Amino acid sequence: MTANSGIQVSVLGLGAMGTALAEALVKAGHETTVWNRTPGKADGIVARGATEAATAGDAVRAAPLVIACLLDHASVHEVLDPLTADLAGRTLVNVTTTSPAQSRELAAWAAAAGVAYLDGGIMAVPQMIGQPGSSILYSGSAEVFQQYKSLLDLWGVSTYFGEDAGLASLYDLALLAGMYVMFAGFMHGAAMVAPAGVTARQFAGTAAPWLSAMTGMLDQYATVIDGGDYTVEGQQSLEFSSLDDILAASSEQGISTDVVAAVQGLIQRQIDAGHGKEGFARIIESLR
Amino acid sequence: MTANSGIQVSVLGLGAMGTALAEALVKAGHETTVWNRTPGKADGIVARGATEAATAGDAVRAAPLVIACLLDHASVHEVLDPLTADLAGRTLVNVTTTSPAQSRELAAWAAAAGVAYLDGGIMAVPQMIGQPGSSILYSGSAEVFQQYKSLLDLWGVSTYFGEDAGLASLYDLALLAGMYVMFAGFMHGAAMVAPAGVTARQFAGTAAPWLSAMTGMLDQYATVIDGGDYTVEGQQSLEFSSLDDILAASSEQGISTDVVAAVQGLIQRQIDAGHGKEGFARIIESLR
Repeated sequence: MTANSGIQVSVLGLGAMGTALAEALVKAGHETTVWNRTPGKADGIVARGATEAATAGDAVRAAPLVIACLLDHASVHEVLDPLTADLAGRTLVNVTTTSPAQSRELAAWAAAAGVAYLDGGIMAVPQMIGQPGSSILYSGSAEVFQQYKSLLDLWGVSTYFGEDAGLASLYDLALLAGMYVMFAGFMHGAAMVAPAGVTARQFAGTAAPWLSAMTGMLDQYATVIDGGDYTVEGQQSLEFSSLDDILAASSEQGISTDVVAAVQGLIQRQIDAGHGKEGFARIIESLR
Repeated sequence: MTANSGIQVSVLGLGAMGTALAEALVKAGHETTVWNRTPGKADGIVARGATEAATAGDAVRAAPLVIACLLDHASVHEVLDPLTADLAGRTLVNVTTTSPAQSRELAAWAAAAGVAYLDGGIMAVPQMIGQPGSSILYSGSAEVFQQYKSLLDLWGVSTYFGEDAGLASLYDLALLAGMYVMFAGFMHGAAMVAPAGVTARQFAGTAAPWLSAMTGMLDQYATVIDGGDYTVEGQQSLEFSSLDDILAASSEQGISTDVVAAVQGLIQRQIDAGHGKEGFARIIESLR
Protein backbone atom coordinates (compact mmCIF):
# COMPACT_ATOMS: atom_id res chain seq x y z
CA MET A 1 0.00 0.00 0.00
CA THR A 2 1.42 3.38 -0.97
CA ALA A 3 0.69 6.62 0.86
CA ASN A 4 -1.82 7.46 -1.90
CA SER A 5 -3.82 4.23 -2.04
CA GLY A 6 -7.53 4.21 -1.41
CA ILE A 7 -8.03 7.86 -2.33
CA GLN A 8 -11.45 9.07 -3.40
CA VAL A 9 -11.02 10.55 -6.85
CA SER A 10 -13.41 11.63 -9.62
CA VAL A 11 -12.57 11.72 -13.31
CA LEU A 12 -14.57 14.07 -15.55
CA GLY A 13 -14.38 13.10 -19.21
CA LEU A 14 -14.13 9.57 -20.60
CA GLY A 15 -12.52 10.07 -23.96
CA ALA A 16 -9.68 7.67 -24.76
CA MET A 17 -7.33 9.61 -22.46
CA GLY A 18 -9.76 10.09 -19.56
CA THR A 19 -10.62 6.41 -19.67
CA ALA A 20 -6.94 5.43 -19.58
CA LEU A 21 -6.34 7.72 -16.59
CA ALA A 22 -9.38 6.34 -14.73
CA GLU A 23 -8.39 2.74 -15.46
CA ALA A 24 -4.95 3.30 -13.93
CA LEU A 25 -6.64 4.71 -10.78
CA VAL A 26 -9.09 1.80 -10.48
CA LYS A 27 -6.29 -0.71 -11.03
CA ALA A 28 -4.31 0.87 -8.16
CA GLY A 29 -7.27 0.51 -5.80
CA HIS A 30 -8.49 4.11 -5.62
CA GLU A 31 -12.21 4.77 -5.10
CA THR A 32 -12.85 6.14 -8.55
CA THR A 33 -16.00 7.94 -9.69
CA VAL A 34 -16.36 8.73 -13.38
CA TRP A 35 -18.60 11.02 -15.44
CA ASN A 36 -18.95 11.72 -19.12
CA ARG A 37 -21.22 14.26 -20.82
CA THR A 38 -22.57 11.74 -23.31
CA PRO A 39 -23.64 8.45 -21.69
CA GLY A 40 -22.45 4.94 -22.57
CA LYS A 41 -18.73 5.59 -22.21
CA ALA A 42 -18.48 4.31 -18.63
CA ASP A 43 -19.62 0.70 -18.99
CA GLY A 44 -16.16 -0.84 -19.39
CA ILE A 45 -14.59 1.07 -16.52
CA VAL A 46 -17.59 0.50 -14.24
CA ALA A 47 -17.24 -3.25 -14.88
CA ARG A 48 -13.65 -2.95 -13.61
CA GLY A 49 -14.75 -1.25 -10.39
CA ALA A 50 -15.44 2.46 -10.96
CA THR A 51 -18.68 4.17 -9.96
CA GLU A 52 -20.56 6.18 -12.57
CA ALA A 53 -21.99 9.54 -11.47
CA ALA A 54 -25.26 10.67 -13.06
CA THR A 55 -24.13 14.31 -13.20
CA ALA A 56 -20.86 16.23 -13.10
CA GLY A 57 -22.04 17.70 -9.79
CA ASP A 58 -22.47 14.23 -8.31
CA ALA A 59 -18.95 13.35 -9.46
CA VAL A 60 -17.44 16.51 -7.95
CA ARG A 61 -19.23 15.96 -4.62
CA ALA A 62 -18.06 12.32 -4.50
CA ALA A 63 -14.35 13.07 -3.97
CA PRO A 64 -11.89 15.65 -2.61
CA LEU A 65 -9.76 15.20 -5.76
CA VAL A 66 -11.27 15.95 -9.17
CA ILE A 67 -9.46 15.17 -12.45
CA ALA A 68 -10.70 17.05 -15.53
CA CYS A 69 -9.83 15.49 -18.90
CA LEU A 70 -12.25 17.27 -21.22
CA LEU A 71 -12.26 18.36 -24.85
CA ASP A 72 -10.82 21.85 -24.48
CA HIS A 73 -10.66 24.99 -22.33
CA ALA A 74 -14.27 25.97 -23.11
CA SER A 75 -15.51 22.54 -22.02
CA VAL A 76 -13.83 22.96 -18.64
CA HIS A 77 -15.77 26.17 -18.01
CA GLU A 78 -19.02 24.73 -19.36
CA VAL A 79 -18.81 21.75 -17.01
CA LEU A 80 -17.34 23.44 -13.92
CA ASP A 81 -18.68 27.01 -13.89
CA PRO A 82 -22.08 25.85 -12.52
CA LEU A 83 -20.26 23.84 -9.84
CA THR A 84 -17.99 26.42 -8.19
CA ALA A 85 -19.82 26.12 -4.85
CA ASP A 86 -19.38 22.33 -4.90
CA LEU A 87 -15.73 22.59 -5.93
CA ALA A 88 -14.76 25.05 -3.16
CA GLY A 89 -12.32 23.38 -0.75
CA ARG A 90 -11.55 20.56 -3.19
CA THR A 91 -8.58 19.98 -5.51
CA LEU A 92 -8.78 20.18 -9.30
CA VAL A 93 -6.10 18.56 -11.46
CA ASN A 94 -6.83 19.68 -15.01
CA VAL A 95 -5.13 17.63 -17.74
CA THR A 96 -7.35 18.99 -20.53
CA THR A 97 -5.14 20.33 -23.34
CA THR A 98 -5.05 24.12 -22.97
CA SER A 99 -2.74 26.95 -23.99
CA PRO A 100 -0.50 28.57 -21.34
CA ALA A 101 -2.82 31.61 -21.23
CA GLN A 102 -5.86 29.36 -20.80
CA SER A 103 -4.15 27.42 -18.00
CA ARG A 104 -3.36 30.68 -16.20
CA GLU A 105 -6.95 31.83 -16.64
CA LEU A 106 -8.23 28.57 -15.12
CA ALA A 107 -5.78 28.88 -12.21
CA ALA A 108 -7.09 32.39 -11.47
CA TRP A 109 -10.68 31.16 -11.77
CA ALA A 110 -9.92 28.28 -9.37
CA ALA A 111 -8.21 30.60 -6.88
CA ALA A 112 -11.26 32.88 -6.87
CA ALA A 113 -13.49 29.85 -6.22
CA GLY A 114 -11.34 28.51 -3.38
CA VAL A 115 -10.18 25.50 -5.40
CA ALA A 116 -6.59 24.18 -5.22
CA TYR A 117 -5.43 23.94 -8.86
CA LEU A 118 -2.77 21.88 -10.63
CA ASP A 119 -2.41 21.96 -14.40
CA GLY A 120 -1.08 18.95 -16.31
CA GLY A 121 0.20 18.37 -19.85
CA ILE A 122 0.22 14.72 -20.91
CA MET A 123 3.18 13.74 -23.12
CA ALA A 124 1.76 10.36 -24.10
CA VAL A 125 -0.97 8.71 -26.13
CA PRO A 126 -3.71 6.87 -24.15
CA GLN A 127 -2.13 3.43 -24.74
CA MET A 128 1.08 4.69 -23.05
CA ILE A 129 -0.59 5.74 -19.76
CA GLY A 130 1.03 3.81 -16.92
CA GLN A 131 3.65 2.40 -19.27
CA PRO A 132 7.35 3.27 -19.61
CA GLY A 133 7.84 6.39 -21.73
CA SER A 134 4.73 8.17 -20.46
CA SER A 135 5.59 11.61 -19.12
CA ILE A 136 3.23 14.18 -17.57
CA LEU A 137 4.22 17.78 -16.95
CA TYR A 138 2.67 19.77 -14.09
CA SER A 139 2.57 23.36 -12.91
CA GLY A 140 0.41 25.31 -10.47
CA SER A 141 0.00 24.38 -6.80
CA ALA A 142 3.21 22.80 -5.44
CA GLU A 143 1.20 21.60 -2.44
CA VAL A 144 -1.23 19.63 -4.62
CA PHE A 145 1.65 18.13 -6.61
CA GLN A 146 3.41 16.98 -3.44
CA GLN A 147 0.23 15.65 -1.82
CA TYR A 148 -0.84 13.55 -4.79
CA LYS A 149 2.51 12.78 -6.46
CA SER A 150 2.36 9.01 -5.97
CA LEU A 151 -1.18 8.94 -7.43
CA LEU A 152 -0.04 11.06 -10.40
CA ASP A 153 2.96 8.76 -10.87
CA LEU A 154 0.50 5.96 -11.74
CA TRP A 155 0.04 7.61 -15.15
CA GLY A 156 3.70 8.25 -16.02
CA VAL A 157 6.80 10.13 -14.89
CA SER A 158 5.53 13.32 -13.19
CA THR A 159 7.61 16.50 -13.52
CA TYR A 160 6.72 19.75 -11.75
CA PHE A 161 7.77 23.07 -13.32
CA GLY A 162 6.60 25.77 -10.92
CA GLU A 163 3.70 27.78 -9.48
CA ASP A 164 2.90 29.53 -12.78
CA ALA A 165 0.06 27.28 -13.98
CA GLY A 166 0.90 28.07 -17.63
CA LEU A 167 4.36 26.50 -17.48
CA ALA A 168 3.32 22.88 -18.01
CA SER A 169 1.24 23.82 -21.09
CA LEU A 170 4.04 25.96 -22.43
CA TYR A 171 6.58 23.17 -21.99
CA ASP A 172 4.12 20.66 -23.45
CA LEU A 173 3.59 22.82 -26.55
CA ALA A 174 7.33 23.45 -26.90
CA LEU A 175 8.03 19.69 -26.90
CA LEU A 176 5.16 19.08 -29.33
CA ALA A 177 6.54 21.83 -31.59
CA GLY A 178 9.88 20.02 -31.66
CA MET A 179 8.12 16.72 -32.38
CA TYR A 180 5.90 17.96 -35.21
CA VAL A 181 8.76 19.82 -36.85
CA MET A 182 10.96 16.71 -36.59
CA PHE A 183 8.18 14.63 -38.17
CA ALA A 184 7.97 17.15 -41.02
CA GLY A 185 11.75 16.88 -41.50
CA PHE A 186 11.45 13.10 -41.75
CA MET A 187 8.59 13.44 -44.26
CA HIS A 188 10.70 15.83 -46.34
CA GLY A 189 13.59 13.36 -46.43
CA ALA A 190 11.28 10.45 -47.27
CA ALA A 191 9.73 12.51 -50.09
CA MET A 192 13.23 13.34 -51.43
CA VAL A 193 14.32 9.70 -51.79
CA ALA A 194 10.94 8.28 -52.89
CA PRO A 195 11.35 9.15 -56.60
CA ALA A 196 14.60 7.11 -56.53
CA GLY A 197 12.61 4.03 -55.52
CA VAL A 198 13.41 4.13 -51.79
CA THR A 199 10.37 3.14 -49.71
CA ALA A 200 9.40 5.21 -46.67
CA ARG A 201 10.14 2.21 -44.43
CA GLN A 202 13.63 1.81 -45.93
CA PHE A 203 14.27 5.49 -45.30
CA ALA A 204 12.85 5.27 -41.75
CA GLY A 205 15.24 2.37 -41.08
CA THR A 206 18.16 4.75 -41.61
CA ALA A 207 16.54 8.03 -40.57
CA ALA A 208 15.16 6.96 -37.17
CA PRO A 209 18.54 5.92 -35.69
CA TRP A 210 20.22 8.88 -37.44
CA LEU A 211 17.83 11.46 -35.98
CA SER A 212 17.93 9.74 -32.60
CA ALA A 213 21.75 9.93 -32.63
CA MET A 214 21.64 13.58 -33.70
CA THR A 215 19.56 14.51 -30.62
CA GLY A 216 22.95 14.02 -28.92
CA MET A 217 23.94 17.41 -30.40
CA LEU A 218 21.15 19.32 -28.64
CA ASP A 219 22.90 19.64 -25.29
CA GLN A 220 25.97 21.08 -27.06
CA TYR A 221 23.86 23.65 -28.89
CA ALA A 222 22.02 24.45 -25.66
CA THR A 223 25.31 25.00 -23.82
CA VAL A 224 26.40 27.50 -26.48
CA ILE A 225 22.99 29.24 -26.39
CA ASP A 226 23.04 29.56 -22.58
CA GLY A 227 26.66 30.80 -22.73
CA GLY A 228 25.55 33.52 -25.15
CA ASP A 229 28.82 33.38 -27.15
CA TYR A 230 28.28 31.87 -30.58
CA THR A 231 31.93 32.43 -31.62
CA VAL A 232 33.19 29.51 -29.48
CA GLU A 233 35.71 27.31 -31.37
CA GLY A 234 34.89 23.86 -32.68
CA GLN A 235 31.33 24.54 -33.84
CA GLN A 236 29.98 24.06 -37.35
CA SER A 237 29.52 27.57 -38.74
CA LEU A 238 26.26 28.98 -40.07
CA GLU A 239 27.94 29.51 -43.47
CA PHE A 240 28.86 25.81 -43.59
CA SER A 241 25.28 24.91 -42.63
CA SER A 242 23.73 26.19 -45.86
CA LEU A 243 20.74 24.17 -47.01
CA ASP A 244 21.20 25.23 -50.66
CA ASP A 245 22.20 21.69 -51.74
CA ILE A 246 19.14 20.23 -50.01
CA LEU A 247 16.86 22.84 -51.57
CA ALA A 248 18.36 22.25 -55.04
CA ALA A 249 18.07 18.46 -54.76
CA SER A 250 14.48 18.79 -53.45
CA SER A 251 13.54 20.94 -56.43
CA GLU A 252 15.23 18.45 -58.79
CA GLN A 253 13.07 15.72 -57.21
CA GLY A 254 10.00 17.91 -57.71
CA ILE A 255 9.04 18.17 -54.03
CA SER A 256 7.88 21.15 -51.99
CA THR A 257 10.64 23.07 -50.23
CA ASP A 258 8.40 24.99 -47.78
CA VAL A 259 9.70 23.56 -44.51
CA VAL A 260 13.39 23.40 -45.47
CA ALA A 261 13.18 26.93 -46.92
CA ALA A 262 11.80 28.19 -43.58
CA VAL A 263 14.80 26.64 -41.78
CA GLN A 264 17.18 28.09 -44.39
CA GLY A 265 15.51 31.45 -43.69
CA LEU A 266 16.56 31.23 -40.02
CA ILE A 267 20.16 30.55 -41.07
CA GLN A 268 20.19 33.24 -43.77
CA ARG A 269 18.89 35.95 -41.42
CA GLN A 270 21.93 35.44 -39.18
CA ILE A 271 24.36 35.32 -42.12
CA ASP A 272 22.84 38.54 -43.50
CA ALA A 273 23.33 40.15 -40.08
CA GLY A 274 27.07 39.35 -40.35
CA HIS A 275 27.22 36.23 -38.16
CA GLY A 276 28.02 33.66 -40.87
CA LYS A 277 31.26 32.53 -39.21
CA GLU A 278 29.53 31.91 -35.87
CA GLY A 279 28.09 28.58 -34.73
CA PHE A 280 24.87 26.97 -36.00
CA ALA A 281 23.20 27.34 -32.57
CA ARG A 282 22.84 31.05 -33.40
CA ILE A 283 19.74 30.28 -35.50
CA ILE A 284 17.75 30.54 -32.25
CA GLU A 285 18.41 34.30 -32.47
CA SER A 286 16.32 34.35 -35.67
CA LEU A 287 13.37 33.09 -33.64
CA ARG A 288 13.35 35.67 -30.85
CA MET B 1 45.35 -9.13 -41.70
CA THR B 2 42.13 -8.44 -43.59
CA ALA B 3 41.66 -9.03 -47.32
CA ASN B 4 42.15 -5.28 -47.84
CA SER B 5 45.34 -4.71 -45.85
CA GLY B 6 48.44 -3.31 -47.52
CA ILE B 7 46.55 -1.63 -50.34
CA GLN B 8 48.15 1.25 -52.22
CA VAL B 9 45.77 4.19 -51.84
CA SER B 10 46.02 7.93 -52.50
CA VAL B 11 44.00 10.60 -50.73
CA LEU B 12 43.47 13.93 -52.50
CA GLY B 13 42.55 16.72 -50.10
CA LEU B 14 43.72 17.09 -46.51
CA GLY B 15 41.03 19.17 -44.91
CA ALA B 16 39.83 17.92 -41.54
CA MET B 17 37.81 15.14 -43.21
CA GLY B 18 40.47 14.06 -45.74
CA THR B 19 43.05 13.93 -42.96
CA ALA B 20 40.78 11.78 -40.79
CA LEU B 21 40.18 9.37 -43.69
CA ALA B 22 43.92 9.15 -44.48
CA GLU B 23 44.81 8.61 -40.83
CA ALA B 24 42.44 5.64 -40.62
CA LEU B 25 44.10 4.14 -43.72
CA VAL B 26 47.66 4.63 -42.38
CA LYS B 27 46.66 3.18 -39.02
CA ALA B 28 45.32 0.05 -40.74
CA GLY B 29 48.63 -0.47 -42.55
CA HIS B 30 47.70 0.67 -46.06
CA GLU B 31 50.40 2.29 -48.25
CA THR B 32 48.89 5.75 -48.19
CA THR B 33 49.95 8.66 -50.42
CA VAL B 34 48.47 12.08 -49.64
CA TRP B 35 48.24 15.36 -51.54
CA ASN B 36 46.78 18.76 -50.73
CA ARG B 37 46.58 21.82 -52.99
CA THR B 38 48.07 24.14 -50.37
CA PRO B 39 51.20 22.72 -48.73
CA GLY B 40 51.87 22.20 -45.02
CA LYS B 41 48.78 20.13 -44.28
CA ALA B 42 50.56 16.75 -44.63
CA ASP B 43 53.23 16.99 -41.93
CA GLY B 44 51.26 15.24 -39.17
CA ILE B 45 50.07 12.38 -41.32
CA VAL B 46 53.51 11.94 -42.97
CA ALA B 47 55.01 11.63 -39.46
CA ARG B 48 52.55 8.76 -38.87
CA GLY B 49 53.65 6.93 -42.04
CA ALA B 50 51.98 8.44 -45.12
CA THR B 51 53.91 9.59 -48.19
CA GLU B 52 53.32 13.12 -49.49
CA ALA B 53 53.03 13.56 -53.25
CA ALA B 54 54.36 16.79 -54.77
CA THR B 55 51.51 16.98 -57.28
CA ALA B 56 48.02 15.55 -57.66
CA GLY B 57 49.34 13.67 -60.71
CA ASP B 58 52.05 12.02 -58.61
CA ALA B 59 49.40 11.00 -56.08
CA VAL B 60 47.11 9.52 -58.75
CA ARG B 61 49.98 7.57 -60.34
CA ALA B 62 51.08 6.20 -56.95
CA ALA B 63 48.02 3.97 -56.38
CA PRO B 64 45.26 2.03 -58.15
CA LEU B 65 42.72 3.46 -55.67
CA VAL B 66 42.24 7.24 -55.43
CA ILE B 67 40.09 8.88 -52.75
CA ALA B 68 38.93 12.44 -53.49
CA CYS B 69 37.88 14.53 -50.49
CA LEU B 70 37.94 18.04 -51.91
CA LEU B 71 36.05 21.28 -51.30
CA ASP B 72 33.24 20.83 -53.80
CA HIS B 73 32.21 19.53 -57.21
CA ALA B 74 34.16 22.25 -59.09
CA SER B 75 37.34 21.36 -57.17
CA VAL B 76 37.06 17.73 -58.27
CA HIS B 77 37.05 18.80 -61.92
CA GLU B 78 39.83 21.36 -61.40
CA VAL B 79 42.10 18.75 -59.83
CA LEU B 80 41.20 15.70 -61.95
CA ASP B 81 40.33 17.03 -65.44
CA PRO B 82 44.04 17.44 -66.31
CA LEU B 83 44.70 13.88 -65.08
CA THR B 84 42.19 11.79 -67.03
CA ALA B 85 44.95 9.91 -68.89
CA ASP B 86 46.62 9.03 -65.57
CA LEU B 87 43.31 8.03 -63.97
CA ALA B 88 42.27 5.66 -66.78
CA GLY B 89 42.14 2.09 -65.48
CA ARG B 90 42.18 3.22 -61.84
CA THR B 91 39.37 3.50 -59.27
CA LEU B 92 38.05 6.80 -57.96
CA VAL B 93 36.09 6.93 -54.69
CA ASN B 94 34.74 10.45 -54.42
CA VAL B 95 33.56 11.50 -50.96
CA THR B 96 33.51 15.21 -51.77
CA THR B 97 30.10 16.67 -50.87
CA THR B 98 28.14 16.99 -54.11
CA SER B 99 24.50 17.13 -55.17
CA PRO B 100 22.90 14.05 -56.76
CA ALA B 101 23.10 15.70 -60.18
CA GLN B 102 26.77 16.54 -59.65
CA SER B 103 27.52 12.96 -58.56
CA ARG B 104 25.83 11.63 -61.69
CA GLU B 105 27.81 14.09 -63.84
CA LEU B 106 31.07 12.90 -62.26
CA ALA B 107 30.10 9.26 -62.79
CA ALA B 108 29.49 9.95 -66.48
CA TRP B 109 32.78 11.86 -66.71
CA ALA B 110 34.60 8.93 -65.04
CA ALA B 111 32.96 6.38 -67.33
CA ALA B 112 34.09 8.36 -70.39
CA ALA B 113 37.63 8.45 -68.98
CA GLY B 114 37.74 4.70 -68.26
CA VAL B 115 37.71 5.25 -64.48
CA ALA B 116 35.73 3.00 -62.10
CA TYR B 117 33.65 5.38 -59.95
CA LEU B 118 32.08 5.11 -56.51
CA ASP B 119 30.39 8.08 -54.88
CA GLY B 120 30.30 8.45 -51.10
CA GLY B 121 28.34 10.62 -48.66
CA ILE B 122 29.87 10.85 -45.19
CA MET B 123 27.32 10.99 -42.35
CA ALA B 124 29.87 11.91 -39.68
CA VAL B 125 32.10 14.73 -38.52
CA PRO B 126 35.88 14.18 -38.86
CA GLN B 127 36.30 13.22 -35.19
CA MET B 128 33.80 10.38 -35.67
CA ILE B 129 35.69 8.68 -38.55
CA GLY B 130 36.52 5.11 -37.52
CA GLN B 131 34.39 5.47 -34.38
CA PRO B 132 30.96 4.00 -33.55
CA GLY B 133 28.16 6.08 -35.09
CA SER B 134 30.07 6.95 -38.26
CA SER B 135 28.07 5.99 -41.33
CA ILE B 136 29.08 6.38 -44.99
CA LEU B 137 26.61 6.00 -47.85
CA TYR B 138 27.80 4.79 -51.28
CA SER B 139 26.40 4.49 -54.77
CA GLY B 140 27.90 3.92 -58.23
CA SER B 141 30.04 0.90 -59.13
CA ALA B 142 28.90 -2.17 -57.16
CA GLU B 143 32.16 -3.85 -58.16
CA VAL B 144 34.27 -1.12 -56.54
CA PHE B 145 32.14 -1.24 -53.40
CA GLN B 146 32.57 -5.02 -53.09
CA GLN B 147 36.30 -4.94 -53.88
CA TYR B 148 37.15 -2.29 -51.30
CA LYS B 149 34.40 -2.78 -48.72
CA SER B 150 36.68 -3.78 -45.85
CA LEU B 151 38.90 -0.74 -46.52
CA LEU B 152 35.82 1.56 -46.62
CA ASP B 153 34.58 -0.03 -43.38
CA LEU B 154 37.63 1.45 -41.63
CA TRP B 155 35.86 4.82 -41.76
CA GLY B 156 32.42 3.78 -40.55
CA VAL B 157 29.47 1.56 -41.40
CA SER B 158 29.36 1.37 -45.22
CA THR B 159 25.96 1.14 -46.93
CA TYR B 160 25.56 0.70 -50.69
CA PHE B 161 22.42 2.06 -52.39
CA GLY B 162 22.75 1.17 -56.08
CA GLU B 163 24.44 1.82 -59.43
CA ASP B 164 22.92 5.31 -59.81
CA ALA B 165 25.84 7.40 -58.53
CA GLY B 166 23.47 10.13 -57.35
CA LEU B 167 21.70 7.92 -54.79
CA ALA B 168 24.23 8.28 -51.97
CA SER B 169 24.18 12.09 -52.26
CA LEU B 170 20.42 12.11 -52.42
CA TYR B 171 20.13 9.91 -49.34
CA ASP B 172 22.79 12.00 -47.58
CA LEU B 173 20.89 15.22 -48.30
CA ALA B 174 17.58 13.64 -47.26
CA LEU B 175 19.04 12.63 -43.88
CA LEU B 176 20.64 16.07 -43.46
CA ALA B 177 17.28 17.69 -44.30
CA GLY B 178 15.69 15.67 -41.49
CA MET B 179 18.49 16.65 -39.12
CA TYR B 180 18.45 20.38 -39.83
CA VAL B 181 14.67 20.54 -39.64
CA MET B 182 14.74 18.64 -36.33
CA PHE B 183 17.37 21.07 -34.99
CA ALA B 184 15.12 23.98 -36.00
CA GLY B 185 12.21 22.32 -34.16
CA PHE B 186 14.36 22.06 -31.03
CA MET B 187 15.38 25.71 -31.36
CA HIS B 188 11.74 26.71 -31.69
CA GLY B 189 10.83 24.83 -28.51
CA ALA B 190 13.80 26.28 -26.63
CA ALA B 191 12.81 29.79 -27.75
CA MET B 192 9.21 29.18 -26.57
CA VAL B 193 10.19 28.28 -22.99
CA ALA B 194 13.08 30.75 -22.64
CA PRO B 195 10.89 33.75 -21.66
CA ALA B 196 9.54 31.61 -18.76
CA GLY B 197 13.09 31.33 -17.38
CA VAL B 198 13.82 27.81 -18.72
CA THR B 199 17.44 27.55 -19.90
CA ALA B 200 18.24 25.90 -23.23
CA ARG B 201 20.10 23.14 -21.38
CA GLN B 202 17.11 22.44 -19.11
CA PHE B 203 14.91 22.20 -22.19
CA ALA B 204 17.45 19.98 -23.99
CA GLY B 205 17.45 17.67 -20.97
CA THR B 206 13.75 16.95 -21.61
CA ALA B 207 13.63 17.51 -25.38
CA ALA B 208 16.53 15.24 -26.42
CA PRO B 209 15.09 12.03 -24.87
CA TRP B 210 11.57 13.07 -25.97
CA LEU B 211 12.57 13.59 -29.61
CA SER B 212 14.68 10.43 -29.54
CA ALA B 213 11.67 8.46 -28.24
CA MET B 214 9.41 10.02 -30.88
CA THR B 215 11.66 8.72 -33.70
CA GLY B 216 10.01 5.43 -32.71
CA MET B 217 6.89 6.71 -34.53
CA LEU B 218 8.66 7.04 -37.89
CA ASP B 219 8.42 3.39 -38.86
CA GLN B 220 4.65 3.46 -38.18
CA TYR B 221 4.19 6.55 -40.35
CA ALA B 222 6.37 4.96 -43.04
CA THR B 223 4.29 1.79 -43.01
CA VAL B 224 1.13 3.83 -43.59
CA ILE B 225 2.82 5.85 -46.36
CA ASP B 226 4.06 2.72 -48.16
CA GLY B 227 0.61 1.14 -47.77
CA GLY B 228 -0.92 4.20 -49.46
CA ASP B 229 -4.07 4.10 -47.27
CA TYR B 230 -4.16 6.98 -44.82
CA THR B 231 -7.60 6.00 -43.47
CA VAL B 232 -6.19 3.06 -41.45
CA GLU B 233 -7.66 2.92 -37.91
CA GLY B 234 -5.71 3.87 -34.80
CA GLN B 235 -3.80 6.83 -36.23
CA GLN B 236 -3.85 10.39 -34.92
CA SER B 237 -5.88 12.36 -37.45
CA LEU B 238 -4.67 15.45 -39.30
CA GLU B 239 -7.50 17.47 -37.72
CA PHE B 240 -6.28 16.47 -34.24
CA SER B 241 -2.72 17.41 -35.25
CA SER B 242 -3.47 21.14 -35.58
CA LEU B 243 -0.55 23.34 -34.57
CA ASP B 244 -2.84 26.31 -33.78
CA ASP B 245 -2.15 26.07 -30.02
CA ILE B 246 1.60 26.01 -30.68
CA LEU B 247 1.35 28.97 -33.06
CA ALA B 248 -0.78 30.95 -30.57
CA ALA B 249 1.57 30.23 -27.65
CA SER B 250 4.60 31.10 -29.82
CA SER B 251 3.05 34.43 -30.73
CA GLU B 252 2.21 35.08 -27.05
CA GLN B 253 5.88 34.45 -26.24
CA GLY B 254 6.87 36.86 -29.02
CA ILE B 255 8.83 34.38 -31.11
CA SER B 256 8.91 33.80 -34.86
CA THR B 257 6.48 31.19 -36.14
CA ASP B 258 8.08 30.67 -39.59
CA VAL B 259 9.08 27.02 -39.24
CA VAL B 260 5.99 25.83 -37.33
CA ALA B 261 3.75 27.74 -39.75
CA ALA B 262 5.39 25.92 -42.67
CA VAL B 263 4.62 22.57 -41.01
CA GLN B 264 1.05 23.71 -40.25
CA GLY B 265 0.79 24.58 -43.96
CA LEU B 266 1.51 20.93 -44.87
CA ILE B 267 -1.26 19.78 -42.50
CA GLN B 268 -3.73 22.46 -43.63
CA ARG B 269 -3.30 21.65 -47.32
CA GLN B 270 -4.49 18.08 -46.68
CA ILE B 271 -7.38 19.22 -44.45
CA ASP B 272 -8.44 21.73 -47.14
CA ALA B 273 -8.39 18.88 -49.67
CA GLY B 274 -10.90 16.99 -47.50
CA HIS B 275 -8.53 14.58 -45.74
CA GLY B 276 -8.78 15.96 -42.18
CA LYS B 277 -10.02 12.68 -40.72
CA GLU B 278 -7.11 10.71 -42.22
CA GLY B 279 -3.82 9.98 -40.47
CA PHE B 280 -1.00 12.47 -39.83
CA ALA B 281 1.35 10.55 -42.17
CA ARG B 282 -0.65 12.06 -45.03
CA ILE B 283 1.31 15.33 -44.71
CA ILE B 284 3.90 13.73 -47.02
CA GLU B 285 1.30 14.21 -49.79
CA SER B 286 1.66 17.98 -49.31
CA LEU B 287 5.33 17.65 -50.22
CA ARG B 288 5.03 15.79 -53.49
